[in-house]
Amino acid sequence: MKIDLSFNAVQFDDLQLREKNIIVLDVLRASTTITIALKNGAREIIPVASIESAVKISGSLFGEVTLRGGERNGKIIEGFNLGNSPLEYNETAVKGKSIIYCTTNGSVAMAKSRYARTLAIGSFINLTATTNFIRDEKKDFLFICAGRANTIGNFSLEDAVCAGMMIQNLSKTESIDVELSDSAKAAYAIFKSFGRSILKMLKNSEHGKYLIEQGFAEDLKICAQIDSVPVLPILIGTVIKLKKEETSIEHA
Amino acid sequence: MKIDLSFNAVQFDDLQLREKNIIVLDVLRASTTITIALKNGAREIIPVASIESAVKISGSLFGEVTLRGGERNGKIIEGFNLGNSPLEYNETAVKGKSIIYCTTNGSVAMAKSRYARTLAIGSFINLTATTNFIRDEKKDFLFICAGRANTIGNFSLEDAVCAGMMIQNLSKTESIDVELSDSAKAAYAIFKSFGRSILKMLKNSEHGKYLIEQGFAEDLKICAQIDSVPVLPILIGTVIKLKKEETSIEHA
Repeated sequence: MKIDLSFNAVQFDDLQLREKNIIVLDVLRASTTITIALKNGAREIIPVASIESAVKISGSLFGEVTLRGGERNGKIIEGFNLGNSPLEYNETAVKGKSIIYCTTNGSVAMAKSRYARTLAIGSFINLTATTNFIRDEKKDFLFICAGRANTIGNFSLEDAVCAGMMIQNLSKTESIDVELSDSAKAAYAIFKSFGRSILKMLKNSEHGKYLIEQGFAEDLKICAQIDSVPVLPILIGTVIKLKKEETSIEHA
Repeated sequence: MKIDLSFNAVQFDDLQLREKNIIVLDVLRASTTITIALKNGAREIIPVASIESAVKISGSLFGEVTLRGGERNGKIIEGFNLGNSPLEYNETAVKGKSIIYCTTNGSVAMAKSRYARTLAIGSFINLTATTNFIRDEKKDFLFICAGRANTIGNFSLEDAVCAGMMIQNLSKTESIDVELSDSAKAAYAIFKSFGRSILKMLKNSEHGKYLIEQGFAEDLKICAQIDSVPVLPILIGTVIKLKKEETSIEHA
């Protein structure tokens, strides 16, 4: 099984992802928020790459069962029902709803992966569910870190660390033979340097500091809780839903 | 002094680099080859982003003093005088010549940096010359790793390790206060994991393996020799020349 990785989602074309098996990671916060929304009973998440797409799509849907959620620069988008804090996506707010979802990095990476053979959404809160899925699929996988579109480096430390932690789990699994690309090896090296305390790493990351400034310190605590929401969001057609047969959780 | 880093050169626009101080790293092999060519008396290197540009530009120059050098997929380009092996750029071949230079990754990153305030070319063979330059400039710097355009991850381990080694040297310098971006911290973590033997790292890297397959094993040995060519190529106008006052080499 080959594991490849990209540190952001902008440097390739959608069509290059055809037939690939993909894990999109956006720890702060799209991957975490989607996982919590679906766990709390949201019917489906429809990731879109732009606010314009979100507005177009929601125009043709029924208001009562459809919500618009997401952020620009961490803040709720004008006219949207929900921002991007996982705390907002509680049962009362999301149960039974379809959520059109637009964020700066995560939803763009997800929308870009629409031609993939499989797409699953990974983060710290469903880390083992994600690695169990990869292990069970026994196929080559590509990790796509969402990155940070507004920076020149377009790099998100927290996503690299999360991918590196998953790579460690997979490499420790005796039943599979894992071959890592150079970028996957690099993510593992980054995890080894920064993965001792996930919450501390999030708090010290550029993105984490920005979210704290914006009043979202509590979100970081939620995003740091490893395996706290052991379910797996996957792309089915054009929407993201929970994978039905929940993977049995075995800590590697 | 802030140090930022990008793991490749495709994810931003030329204009975002305006007024920045940039080090372009393409260890295998553009940075190494340019440094050796200039040390061996080449008059100047003119980096271009495409073969078409190389042909256009060389059409208006005099044949005797102008050479075309570079590669596509590691191999010499049809109609060019030189490939991209540093071994080809010896004194007999390059002395007094202007070299129009086109490669898959390195020259693209250099051409893209044309609006930068300062641009220097770094690699293992001029590592300390590069970090001395940064230290003396006392300004914020951006490392641009050339990456690998033909891969989805667009990541070059060897460039990340080289940048990480430079970051270590700078961080150890007592006279300056270095602040690292998340991506710069990540490069340093990658260096810590892979920087023990540079030649071994190059031989095991994806790009190194490819070059060995193509018959360029000797090039890797040249590219691995830390501080073997202690000069600094910098952009002056639209061409790359050696920095005149050579920086004194002090190992940090």
